[in-house]
Formats: sequence, C-alpha cells, structure tokens
Amino acid sequence: MARALQLAERGRWTCDPNPRVGCVLVRDGECIGEAWHARAGEPHAEILALRAAGGDTAGATAYVTLEPCSHYGRTPPCADALIEAGIARVVAAATDPNPRVAGRGLDRLREAGVAVTAGLMAEHSERLNPGFFRRMRAGLPYVRAKLAASLDGRTAMASGESRWITSDAARHDVHRWRAGSGAIVTGVDTVIADDPQLTVRDVEADFLPPRRVVIDTDLRTPPDAGMLADERGVVLIHGGTMPAREPDLVHAGAELWHVAPGEDSHVSPTAALEVLAGVEINEVWMEAGPRLTGAWIQAGLVDELIVYLAPHLMGHEGRPLLALSGLEVMTDRLPLTWMDQRRVGEDLRLTLRVREPEEV
Amino acid sequence: MARALQLAERGRWTCDPNPRVGCVLVRDGECIGEAWHARAGEPHAEILALRAAGGDTAGATAYVTLEPCSHYGRTPPCADALIEAGIARVVAAATDPNPRVAGRGLDRLREAGVAVTAGLMAEHSERLNPGFFRRMRAGLPYVRAKLAASLDGRTAMASGESRWITSDAARHDVHRWRAGSGAIVTGVDTVIADDPQLTVRDVEADFLPPRRVVIDTDLRTPPDAGMLADERGVVLIHGGTMPAREPDLVHAGAELWHVAPGEDSHVSPTAALEVLAGVEINEVWMEAGPRLTGAWIQAGLVDELIVYLAPHLMGHEGRPLLALSGLEVMTDRLPLTWMDQRRVGEDLRLTLRVREPEEV
Repeated sequence: MARALQLAERGRWTCDPNPRVGCVLVRDGECIGEAWHARAGEPHAEILALRAAGGDTAGATAYVTLEPCSHYGRTPPCADALIEAGIARVVAAATDPNPRVAGRGLDRLREAGVAVTAGLMAEHSERLNPGFFRRMRAGLPYVRAKLAASLDGRTAMASGESRWITSDAARHDVHRWRAGSGAIVTGVDTVIADDPQLTVRDVEADFLPPRRVVIDTDLRTPPDAGMLADERGVVLIHGGTMPAREPDLVHAGAELWHVAPGEDSHVSPTAALEVLAGVEINEVWMEAGPRLTGAWIQAGLVDELIVYLAPHLMGHEGRPLLALSGLEVMTDRLPLTWMDQRRVGEDLRLTLRVREPEEV
Repeated sequence: MARALQLAERGRWTCDPNPRVGCVLVRDGECIGEAWHARAGEPHAEILALRAAGGDTAGATAYVTLEPCSHYGRTPPCADALIEAGIARVVAAATDPNPRVAGRGLDRLREAGVAVTAGLMAEHSERLNPGFFRRMRAGLPYVRAKLAASLDGRTAMASGESRWITSDAARHDVHRWRAGSGAIVTGVDTVIADDPQLTVRDVEADFLPPRRVVIDTDLRTPPDAGMLADERGVVLIHGGTMPAREPDLVHAGAELWHVAPGEDSHVSPTAALEVLAGVEINEVWMEAGPRLTGAWIQAGLVDELIVYLAPHLMGHEGRPLLALSGLEVMTDRLPLTWMDQRRVGEDLRLTLRVREPEEV
C-alpha cells in the first residue's frame, strides 16, 4: 500500500479534478503490475495496473489507495474490470467519499466473491487528496492560505513596500504549490496594490494550469491589470453591485461570476468557494492580503495556513500578518495545529492546520 | 576533542564565571584520564584529568577545549602542571581570549618542549562559551533575548492579557535557559505589568542562581514587587534621577546600581551591560517587553533571539513582538540568521543570531 501511495503521488499535478490514486497488483509475493491515475478522462490506476500485468492477473491481490469506482463516469467502473480480471482480493486504503461510489464499489466486489479489506493507511490516502475529500463531503474546496512575513509577523514595511520578503527558494516553492492547486485565489486589493500575474513559473514538470480567481465584490479590478493581459483567463467573483463596470472587464478577457453577498456586503466566502467546488476545484491556493485572508479564516473556511517566515525584523509599524476582528482576551485566540516546519532556502516554512477535518 | 567538548558541556550550569572546559588524556590510543571544569575556584579540567590518570601521564597527549592557562588566577597555572606531568603533546581547540592568557599558555608549553596544536574544533569551543568569549573580547556579556508570541507575532492580546501564550514545556525550557545564564534581565514595565519572580523553578540539576536585574531608569519598581519578597537579591540598574525613591527600595532588599543615561535619557544599554560584565556575567538572559528588547536590538547589543511561537492567532490589535523605530522601507530591515528551530511541547522554538560575532 505504501508503494501504491507513492505511485498515486505521481498524479499530484495532473489528475485534477480526480483524486490521486495508485494501484499495485501482487501475486505470490511478487508485484505483477502497478500504475497511477495520471489525467481525468484517461484510465484509472486499476485499469492501467491490469494492463501493465499483461492479462495474467487471475488470483492476484490488488492494493489500491481509494475504493474502486462502481459507476460510469468519464470511464467505465473499475470494480467490474477487477472482477473480470479474476482478482481474488482487493485491499483499499480509503473508502470513496464520492456519494456516487460511497462503499458501492466494495459491495460490488464482495458480491462477486472478491475478498475485500478497507482502511489500510486510509489517512495517508486522505492526506494525499484533501481537496477531493473535502469537496465530496462538504461541497467546498480545501483551502490553503499562503502568507509571507518577517520574523516579527509583518507582511509589508511601514511604507507599504513588500517586495521581496522571502528568498528566491521560497518563491519557487510557492510556484510548486500553485502548480498543484486547482485555483489561485486573491483579493482585489492585492491586484490593485501588487498587480500580480499569479501564473506558475519555473516549474519543470507537467501540470494543469490553475484557474486565477479574484474576489472582487465591487469589480474594482483595473481592466489593464497584468493578469488580464495574458490568455490564461481570470475569474472575477463579484457581488453584482457594479453592472456598469462589467463590459470593460469582459472585453479585457475576464470571466465574471456573480455570487450572493455575505452579511458585511462583501462577497460571501462560502458562496465563492461553493461556485469553485461547482467547477470541480479541489484545492484552492489563496494568496491574498491580511484582511481577506483573516476574514476567510474567521469564516472557518481556511483549512491550512502556510507561512514563509523570513529572517528579518520589519518593525511594529509594518503591515500585520492577518487582520482578525473581535479578538480581545486569551480565550478569543484562534487555535492552530502544527503540521510541518522546514527551511526553504533562507526562509522557514510553517504549515498549520486551521480547520480540523470533519469526522467521518 | 569531541569527547572533551562533551565533558566541557557538563559544567554548563555551574562553572560560571569561568569558561566550560573539558580535557581528555590519551596514550597509545587509550584514554587514561578525563575531566571537566565544574566550579570556579575548584581545579581546572587539565588538573582533574591528570589526577584521574593517577600520576602516570609521561608521554601522553592532552586534548583540551581551551588553551591551558599560564597565570595564577583562582588556581595555579595549568600549563605548568601539564609540563610537570610529562605531557608530550597538547591539542587545544580554542585559544584563550582572556588577555591574561592570550597564547601565553601555549607559548609556555612550547618553550618546555611540548608539541602544541591549536584550532581543532575551535568553533565548537567558542559556541560552548559565547559569553566568556564575548566578555573577554568586547567587555560585554553575550545577550539572549527571549520572546513568546503567537504565530501572528503578538505578545499579548488587545486587552493586555498575555498569560500564558506558550505551553508548560516551553516555560520549562525557559527555566533551563535561565539556569544556564549569569543574569536574567528585564525592564521595569514588565515588573509593573506582570510582577514576575524571574527565579529558576523545576530544574533538577545543580546550577548557580542567576542574578535578577531590572533596567529601571527612574526607579519605578514598586517596593512590594514579588521579586523583592524573596532573599535571592535583585539589582535595579537606574539613572540616578530619583534619589527619593532609593531608601524604600534598599530597605525592600534591592541593590541599586547607578549607570550613565543614554541619548534618550534612559539607562544606556551599553553602560548596563558593561557593569554586568564588570561583575563577571558571561551570559545574559533577557525577558523584557517589546520596547526594551527592541531598543537593545537596535543598539546592536542583543546577540541571539529566542522566540517561542505558539500555534495560535491573537489578532492585529495585540501587542507587537518588538517595537523597532525608524524602519520605513525594505532596506531598513534588520537581518537575522537562523541558528536553530525545533518543537518544544506545543510550541516552536526559533533561535536566530542578531549580531554577527566579531572577527578574530
């Protein structure tokens, strides 16, 4: 199963919106075929592993990181293919959270007389697919919010200057995270202040370009913003309050998505994430300012915080890491959980869980 | 030499104000005696190693982490003892920065026909004794400033509440650092706000109690402060501006040390550290608020920053990590160098070099 998880990892940047899945076929203690799911629309890991085994698979055990599918989606059901191939035993890591599968793949295998075990290294499989699991269970993408700050938690100098807080190595690491995400989300204030590209640069491997999304309640994105100048497409999620600004932005190449406003008359973060889940975005990479990121954290919609901490002091008049309202006393603190900490070039990358995953 | 450094480490909490030194005697590839310096006034590591070897040391090699002394201090010179014991070769890690020794110990050995090598693992020896080296070279103690903050760099909530930001494990770690320091320094604002004890608690091993020092320009320390209630003694470093307050504080048990004011009419940090070096304080452990710590950093007198980062968000209205004046643009940033990062209980301990050590 550890090998199957390794294989699944190879689909990280290309299999969106499908989950990352690996499969290993074993008979008499020997691996007779292995594969991973590379792209949506192409065969699933199980089918490719059967093909790799060259037809002679009767009596083998299939280790697969996710329950084999039982429905006709982009491809025919894998459970049927395993049965036809004479597989004697299936060991699955996680059960598929997709309500269209949800145990039915394993049931179908059992009914056909295949021995079935589920749950082996299930957590690893979920951890490999946080967005797919979150979307299937809650109808929302998994959101990673990225911040770059000095040791004293400042994201810009008193003057507003913020380029560059982190080293080349950290910025390259950000491009790799972008490459693995379904969408990069920022706020209109960041677009106005920094005019970012939000493209993936200097990443050698194959990847699916993430959608670029701006949360822009009042459509303040300038039609000459750098992001609109290239042909990769930009989505502006807005509140429908400024219809007069729409034609120029559409002409500049933006897609405009209108969602309901939240209580504070800004675009509701839940509504914005729901429309992203609606177009099958599993993992969102958020690179926004302290206000938008803070608001989404306080709305309980940020799953993970990734902070690049630079070895500098920028001073107490610099811009704060996050704007968080209403935190007065110690019991108001927002608790986090450490997931990882490591040096990336000259900086320290801290990864923390913000939202505890739902109980299954 | 690695073994000698290990032995030297055993004197960490007890040999103040002397340096931590270890010695290993080797003959024919075999260790015939080893020791470390445990307490000022007691024999040095070389003497104890010779004793451990039981007199039969002719022709042996002595590995010692610091150049053997050549002067009569609290004990007679070690160079002479090594010569008398018939040691054939001395390998020293660092040369003694003490101007009373400064190469003369090695010279005396050479003159007596002993083969001498110096410099092996010298950096390790210096790193073990940052305060002793700094005091001998610059007449100032080595200063570690400790801060405890939330991930967003806040040292108190908007309400001022700050107990406790970090976990028990981090606070215990602080007590160990205190135990290894010659003085704990705080500011009068912290005394007024938190009424801390600044004692060493829950540390099992033997240690020399550090002096407790308050930087208190105008003698605002309340005579009923908790620190003054016990008999361990407190030093108030003041600017001599409030003579009327002196009798009550002396009566309460405080020692008052008067130093020159700095440019801003506060106690000059350099002057304060000079008087601490004057009483042979090697390592200072600073636990003060953002203003005093920030001022000392900007004065170039803090060598090392130790930040306990708690996995919480406390909000942008909380107290900043440091108050640093005059940092406007990116080129004003104060650069730091990572020394270490590790989890301590639920918190992350970050250690950074603030002042680069002087070239030797």
